[in-house]
Order: sequence, then C-alpha cells, then structure tokens
Amino acid sequence: MKPLRLSQRATKTPPSPIRKLGKHARDAERKGIKVHRLNIGQPDVDSPPEFFEGLSVYQDSVVKYDESVGSLDLRQSWSDFILRTSNLKVRPEEIIITVGASEALIFAFMTCCDPGDEIIIFEPTYANFIGFAALAGIKLIPVATYLENNFKLPPREEINVVFSNRTRAILLCNPNNPTGTFYTQQDLALLLEICEENNIFLIVDETYREIVFDSLTPFSVQHIAEDNKRVIVIDSLSKRFSLCGARIGCLATSNQEVISAISNIAQARLAAPTIEQFACAHMLKSLDQNYLNSLRSCYESRRDALINALSDIPQLTFSTPSGAFYLVARLPIQNSEHFCRFMLNSFSYEGETIFLAPGAGFYLTPNAGEDTVRIAFVLEELRLIRAVTILKTGLIAYLS
Amino acid sequence: MKPLRLSQRATKTPPSPIRKLGKHARDAERKGIKVHRLNIGQPDVDSPPEFFEGLSVYQDSVVKYDESVGSLDLRQSWSDFILRTSNLKVRPEEIIITVGASEALIFAFMTCCDPGDEIIIFEPTYANFIGFAALAGIKLIPVATYLENNFKLPPREEINVVFSNRTRAILLCNPNNPTGTFYTQQDLALLLEICEENNIFLIVDETYREIVFDSLTPFSVQHIAEDNKRVIVIDSLSKRFSLCGARIGCLATSNQEVISAISNIAQARLAAPTIEQFACAHMLKSLDQNYLNSLRSCYESRRDALINALSDIPQLTFSTPSGAFYLVARLPIQNSEHFCRFMLNSFSYEGETIFLAPGAGFYLTPNAGEDTVRIAFVLEELRLIRAVTILKTGLIAYLS
Repeated sequence: MKPLRLSQRATKTPPSPIRKLGKHARDAERKGIKVHRLNIGQPDVDSPPEFFEGLSVYQDSVVKYDESVGSLDLRQSWSDFILRTSNLKVRPEEIIITVGASEALIFAFMTCCDPGDEIIIFEPTYANFIGFAALAGIKLIPVATYLENNFKLPPREEINVVFSNRTRAILLCNPNNPTGTFYTQQDLALLLEICEENNIFLIVDETYREIVFDSLTPFSVQHIAEDNKRVIVIDSLSKRFSLCGARIGCLATSNQEVISAISNIAQARLAAPTIEQFACAHMLKSLDQNYLNSLRSCYESRRDALINALSDIPQLTFSTPSGAFYLVARLPIQNSEHFCRFMLNSFSYEGETIFLAPGAGFYLTPNAGEDTVRIAFVLEELRLIRAVTILKTGLIAYLS
Repeated sequence: MKPLRLSQRATKTPPSPIRKLGKHARDAERKGIKVHRLNIGQPDVDSPPEFFEGLSVYQDSVVKYDESVGSLDLRQSWSDFILRTSNLKVRPEEIIITVGASEALIFAFMTCCDPGDEIIIFEPTYANFIGFAALAGIKLIPVATYLENNFKLPPREEINVVFSNRTRAILLCNPNNPTGTFYTQQDLALLLEICEENNIFLIVDETYREIVFDSLTPFSVQHIAEDNKRVIVIDSLSKRFSLCGARIGCLATSNQEVISAISNIAQARLAAPTIEQFACAHMLKSLDQNYLNSLRSCYESRRDALINALSDIPQLTFSTPSGAFYLVARLPIQNSEHFCRFMLNSFSYEGETIFLAPGAGFYLTPNAGEDTVRIAFVLEELRLIRAVTILKTGLIAYLS
C-alpha cells in the first residue's frame, strides 16, 4: 500500500518563523532558564480594563452565534472609534469582523485572487502573508527593500518590472512588520497610482496604525483614497489594545462587491467569537481617550532603549523603526536560525536567554535575510536592555 | 477602465442556505412579527454554568496569544472528556484546537486536497461543506441518499462508481446534518473499507456525537479505527454544550504527518481565542456528569413533539431523525426557497411566522431538494408545536 498522500499546499505551507522555535523555548524553560521572548509581537502591556469590564457584563445565558459579518454593535463601535481617532468615516456596512487580522487577510486573498494569481509584496514581509499565500495558491512576488535605508519603498520602476498578467494586488503592512518602516502618504499615493494604472487592488494591513514615533501623524490609506473601490484595509485590535488572544480583527472597504463576496465566505465559517466581540465593543465605546497616546510613548521609549543598547554591539546593524514594534537587525553571523536555536538550546547568561525570530522566514527570495533577525520590542525597557546584554554575550559565545 | 475583477472562487462561493434569508427575518421582526427560527442550529438551551464560571475566573491581565495548536490545558481536558464519555483514548498531541468545527474542516480540506481534487459526500449534505470546498477549489462529488428511507447510506456499488483518480477523501457528518441520520458502526466500517481500498482519507464530522435517540449508543469512528492514519475526526463544543458563539472546535487524528502539516497552517493564523479556550477547559473539567444525558432526552422530546405535529400536515413527508437536531421535510410545493421567503416577507399567523432553511442549498445536484426544507428542533416543545401550526397555515395560504 502506498502511503497516504497529503496535499502539495499543506506540505508547502512553511512553519511560522516567529513560532517554529517555540518548542525549544519551552524546553529551555523546563530546564529552568528564563527566556526573554522577543520573537513574537505579543506585548506585555495590560489589556484595557474596559475590555475585562465588557467580559464581566456579558449577560446572555446562551452563547449564540453572532452575525457572520460581525455584530452590528462592534461594527458600529469600531466605525465610531475610527472616526474619533482618525477622523475618517468608515460605515458599519463597510466593515466585516474577522477572527484576527489573519482571517481578514485570508478573506482578502481569496476574494482578489484565484490559484496562480500574483500579489506584489515588499521584502522582508510579514511572514504569515507567506503562509496564507501558500494555502490560497497565490504567488507572492517580492520587491526588495534594504536595511541600509530603513527598508524604504523602492523607486516606481522596480515595482513596475514585476507586473505580469496575473498580478491582482499590491499588499503591504503600514507601519510595517517586520521592519518598523512607516510608509508616508506619498508612498501610499504612489502605490495607489500604480494600482490604478494596472487596475488591481491595494491591500493595506493597518494593524499598527496608531503606533508611530518621532511625532509622525498616523494615517490610513483611506485618508488619501476615500471611497476608492480598489482599497482594502486589514485591521485588528490585537496590537494597539494588547488583545492578541481575543482574535478580533476586521476588513474594511467601500467596495460593496467585495463586501458581498466576503459575506458569503464569512457565512460558510459562521461567525467570529460572540463574547470577544461583545467585550471589544464595550471597550471601544468606553475607552480612556488617552490610551493610544500613552501606548505610543510606551513603545517609543522602548524603541529608544533598544536601539541605544543595540548600538553597543560591534558589527551589528539594524533599521530604525518609525512605527509598529519591530526592528530587523543584521548579525555578524551566517545563519540566524542556527544562532536562534543555539540561544535556546545551548546558551544561557546568568540563567537567562533570548528568543528571536530568524529573518529568512520574512523573505521569499531564497537565501535572503539569513544573517538577520526580527526583534519585537514588546517588553519593558529594563528587560530589553537585559536582552541585548544576553544577545551580546550570546554572539561572543556563538562566534568563539 | 475595466471594472475590478473579483476571483472566480469568491464569486462562486454560495451564500449559506441557513443564513441567506437572515435579512428577511430581521425585516419581519422590525415589522413587529415574532419569528420562530428553525433555520439555524442555534439551540435555545442554556450554555453550561461551568463555562461562565470559567470566564469569571480568567485572571491574566494580558489577553495573550495561545499556542497555535491550542492550549495544552484545553487539549488535555478535551482528551479526558473523550475518555470519560466515549471510553476512547485520544492524546492531547492528536488534537488541534480550531475556531469552531468550521476551521477544522478547512484545515482538513486544505491538508487532504489540492485544487481540482475531489471529496465524496452524501447528499443532502452540510451546506457549509459546499462553501469551504468552493474556497479551497475542491470538487465535492455527491452520492444521493433519499428521504424515503431516512437518508440511509447507499449500497457500496453506488459509492464505488463515483471514484476518480482525483478522489482524496470521503466526508460525512455523524449523526448527520441536515438529515438527522445516525450512521451505524457497520456503515462506518464499510466506508473505512472503501477508503482503505482506494488509499484515501475518511473525514467524519462528529459535532453531534452524543445527541442520539431511541436508546442508540453514541460512538466515534475512532472506536472502530483506533490509530488508523486515514481517519480525521472533526469536532466542536458548539452543539453539545450550546456554545455556538464560543467558536471552539477541534480536529483529531492519530496521523502525525497530518498534525504536523496542520500545525504549520495553524501557525499562519496564529491561534484560537484564548479566553474561550480557558473557559471551555474549565467547563470540560468541572462539568456535571449528567449534562449529556439530559441534553439527549431534551432533544429526543423535542423530536417527538415535532414529528408528532408534522404528521398532522397532509402531503408533507419527512425523515425521522435518530440523532443531531434536524430533519428534512418535503413540502407540497415546488420551490421551498420561494416559500421560505414568503413566510418571512408576506405571511404571519397571529403576529408570528417561521424561518426555515431551504433544502436546495444542501444539495450540489442542480434542481435537487427544491421541494424540501431543513427544520432544526432547537426550540422548546410548545414553540415547535406552535411553529408547525404556523407552517400548516402558511402552506394553505401559499398554495391558495
């Protein structure tokens, strides 16, 4: 009997570079080593008390299915929140609530592309784009950006040359994961122009929208493209409210044809979690107005502490993030995955070690990014400084 | 400028027959009409108090991502629950927690099939199988079953003839949605034999496993196929614990290659909701041992009340369910979708009407099932009897 054959797409879906070494981290912890987790965008910041208050006032004695497009209560609250914080009108009918930004991305991929279609991304890119594309049979076409200039967008010509007759969308995350790059309104206007010329979608993941530094003004692509039918915004409450585990995201577009197609897809998977939607709606309605400002300064201080500490490591270069809470660093080594495993399996400094995300998983181009890591500055400053000390001693041990 | 083109797969994904008339029901309610919802498998039974107790003892101040395969606590509790209630050993490592059975089904589809591959199903079938297959580019191959003999499995020859070199799995729900059919151990043994012969997967959705009537003994396909690598079980807490909105399901298989591939897919979407997992684990550990027995008798009484009432409608035939909480009825009309719309838009009896799921959406074969509806007996007996009175008067009004 031949063995049972699994699908190509399943066997081709790569493990997440952010999570694949998780087992080694747990093993280290079992050995009594304290692991500083800089691999994953899981903030240590408390979730807002208004969320827990929402949980506690949930009353229904039956935890029923919610509407497939999301509860009207949450869509309305999110719409109000966007108006209040971004001065932008996104109507509840233009929002579909999803299980995290993850599901919103899958819905967008499925709606814009058939198998074999192509989406242009900028490399390094959010690793899970790669996983979703593998599942959906979509070819991601990378356009390179470089650490040396903080991963800025390349000139128009370099984007134009990767177009084919299968290109269906340009996709980016702004501010960017994993590089922390803040793409400007001019950058987005350029991409929008390219999308107009080629009649394709522009998908912007704005999960980190309000997390920008150096007095930059947060903005949405919808500010420069109001009612533009080719724009799809992906969003999530995970990062800006430290609610990664709530799994509440959304997709927003003024394109009613897209909303209608995604509504059908959303019906097949029934609904997003009811109680989380309820608690999130409660939170968005009652949230302290200062929450986002203090969040921004919290991450800005962390960024400053991190880059200050990293500057002390010779032969290490890194991008300076203007937003989100990640940076990409190039280490004086050949294979960062090997190094990350070493840090978890074979190294500790005063009983502690660090968990970093190997950079190659953020690249589609073979062998690219192998000397880089993504560092998430999701821990408080003293722990970040401590983590850099561990990195420094770890590098010395690894190289010797 | 040509209009923006959506993908074929998105435009081909049908709306759910169970949910697509939801707008009409809400419109009727806005007009002040009371709508008895027999369209959707949303029980009115209270969710277990142990679930809410779990919610209330959640302590973490940060709602963090859980593990991609699901929290060990929940996988262990679910494993213990299966051992306790079904006397079956399914290890935590053989379980992946998903966002409802829906996500477990998508994972199974993606792992067993590439686009163009085929899965054999029995018609009428769970409607969302059709939506997921459209998204995943999988061709569902229907084998007919008939109301006249309670939708029993057809003889082996009728299954054998639909095989092709693209057939990758047989999929069924046991007890079945939408027919309420309980497939016996012999039925499952036959299907397993066919799967062995053709070296394909057997996927069994056991969401309603314990809900069986007439003193039947609930069983899992894993009882007759322990450690069989071709068996994938889909499960969910939604129905047996009246927790549809919690969106907690799982996939269980002893095939470690499948578990490993799905773990990668699961990493891309990060995790299932954390608090729901916590509360469900708490519930499974502390649940009243009598819960499932009383649930079973509750639905059995409802079934009896429903079929007793339906027997009074002339020219209406129906299947007698032995499990789950649905039955399929054939109405003395041509187009049940038209009739279901009529009931919501143009009819009421003493200020009340009913919402049924049109049967055609549970069929792939064109024009099949158009004179049928699915009735979910998820309301208490008096409301079911009332609903049948409304159906009876509605039919008279519609036919006149």
